[in-house]
Amino acid sequence: MRNLNEDTITQAVIASLNGCRDERLHTVITSLVQHLHSFARETKLTEAEWQAAIAFLTATGHITDDKRQEFILLSDVLGLSTLVTAQNHAKPAGCTEATVFGPFYVTGSPEYRSFDDISNGARGEPCFVRGQVRALDGKAITNALLEVWQADEDGHYDVQLPPGDNGAVEHRARGKLRTDADGRFAFRSILAEPYPIPHDGPVGALLSALGRHPWRPAHLHFMIQARGYETLITHVFRDGDRYLDSDAVFGVRSTLVAQWVRHRPGTAPDGSRVDVPYYTLDYDFVLNPQGSAA
Amino acid sequence: MRNLNEDTITQAVIASLNGCRDERLHTVITSLVQHLHSFARETKLTEAEWQAAIAFLTATGHITDDKRQEFILLSDVLGLSTLVTAQNHAKPAGCTEATVFGPFYVTGSPEYRSFDDISNGARGEPCFVRGQVRALDGKAITNALLEVWQADEDGHYDVQLPPGDNGAVEHRARGKLRTDADGRFAFRSILAEPYPIPHDGPVGALLSALGRHPWRPAHLHFMIQARGYETLITHVFRDGDRYLDSDAVFGVRSTLVAQWVRHRPGTAPDGSRVDVPYYTLDYDFVLNPQGSAA
Repeated sequence: MRNLNEDTITQAVIASLNGCRDERLHTVITSLVQHLHSFARETKLTEAEWQAAIAFLTATGHITDDKRQEFILLSDVLGLSTLVTAQNHAKPAGCTEATVFGPFYVTGSPEYRSFDDISNGARGEPCFVRGQVRALDGKAITNALLEVWQADEDGHYDVQLPPGDNGAVEHRARGKLRTDADGRFAFRSILAEPYPIPHDGPVGALLSALGRHPWRPAHLHFMIQARGYETLITHVFRDGDRYLDSDAVFGVRSTLVAQWVRHRPGTAPDGSRVDVPYYTLDYDFVLNPQGSAA
Repeated sequence: MRNLNEDTITQAVIASLNGCRDERLHTVITSLVQHLHSFARETKLTEAEWQAAIAFLTATGHITDDKRQEFILLSDVLGLSTLVTAQNHAKPAGCTEATVFGPFYVTGSPEYRSFDDISNGARGEPCFVRGQVRALDGKAITNALLEVWQADEDGHYDVQLPPGDNGAVEHRARGKLRTDADGRFAFRSILAEPYPIPHDGPVGALLSALGRHPWRPAHLHFMIQARGYETLITHVFRDGDRYLDSDAVFGVRSTLVAQWVRHRPGTAPDGSRVDVPYYTLDYDFVLNPQGSAA
């Protein structure tokens, strides 16, 4: 343990883990130390670069609060989130694919009923979303819990907007719904639009230094939970979006791309009269039975 | 860029860096992405573990402020700091070795003159430190700037203690000195004692989960700057300390271990009368000429 140099330090750190009683933690930290050290050796990381990394992580921590998660953003733009999602969701063919969680999910969103307007004042063109949640054998899944969240036409999620008079986030374009006896759900919201991930912080500065843009293709977030099935965390992406092939967080899957259909003013799917053009999206989800794998 | 899986995501992220104009940044981030992904693949990191890592980094960021640097602590306990220090300080034989910077350096410490008492009220047994700063050829280096910092007998640095009446840190056992015409320096301070690194935060919890103790062997920090020489950041460690072979941050080098000699009450090296037992430490430093390497 004395006189460690760049060649002997890695084994010394690993040896210091001998007293760890958590076998999985031992495995994970051993691998982390090996790869972290290999990275520093391979790049011959300088002290100035090490200091810049410390400052970057510190700034990432300081901008993170209960409404902004810059570490998730960092994981997303480095492709780590997509990798972790992919390797944990090998599913039978026919199941809806998962994609990245993103930094904008929050708990405590309002509960809605079929065809309610979940936009709650969020700005954007009207959009009616309908679909069914099914099992692999085609059977409808009743009483599944859907959580939906999306950005407004300016590219902001509700948690990025100033809070309401009581200081709390006003939930907009975000809500919970349950599937009916036929496994169906429906709600009114707003049209999904492309938007840049928050790029006024350290992750934005990194993207800029890397010559990368911060845009994500238009999408709607879904988390779907039902008893006996694996929880599905995914997006539906809007076909035709110019960022489908350069998503800043590497989340696009072809099977998750769908048509948002534009309609002239008229009678909407909920039976109401809409005086402006509106959109409809029809998309069904197929859940993976719990404990199953590809 | 669509349908990326755990096998294709890494190359996709690397390809996204093609527009980066900073060649070094391109190299560093490419290597980082490769190793980060290899780590996640090799351990088949789960989503729960990924979330625990996000929470850990968030907590590490939130406990970090201008007086506490938990990310440096994390780098230290994972051996990254020692690796980076080692690979950037290949020096000719005979030069004083460098070791880790640690999280407790702060700028703006008071300036002292020879034999001043830098403890400034910090608790501990009296200790007189003397030495010389030399070049490799034995020539004295005059007017070198030494910055010294150390913990008190309770194991606390001044920045860890409550601030003074004006809200600022009261600098204790920390100060700046200059070498004289013979390259010599001398100061009074307190005896260096072993102490645990701050372990009430996420890094302490990690060490505990890993079955590791948080202790560092007793040491005195030095940063020495002189025109024409590479800045030396190092410690002097106290011989006989029980943690010399299990330093929580892997910083010990045999050439940096020295004797603190205990004396009975009497006339101290500064000519003053000391009514309690006191210690002396004699240690010389040899600086590396700027632009030189091993």
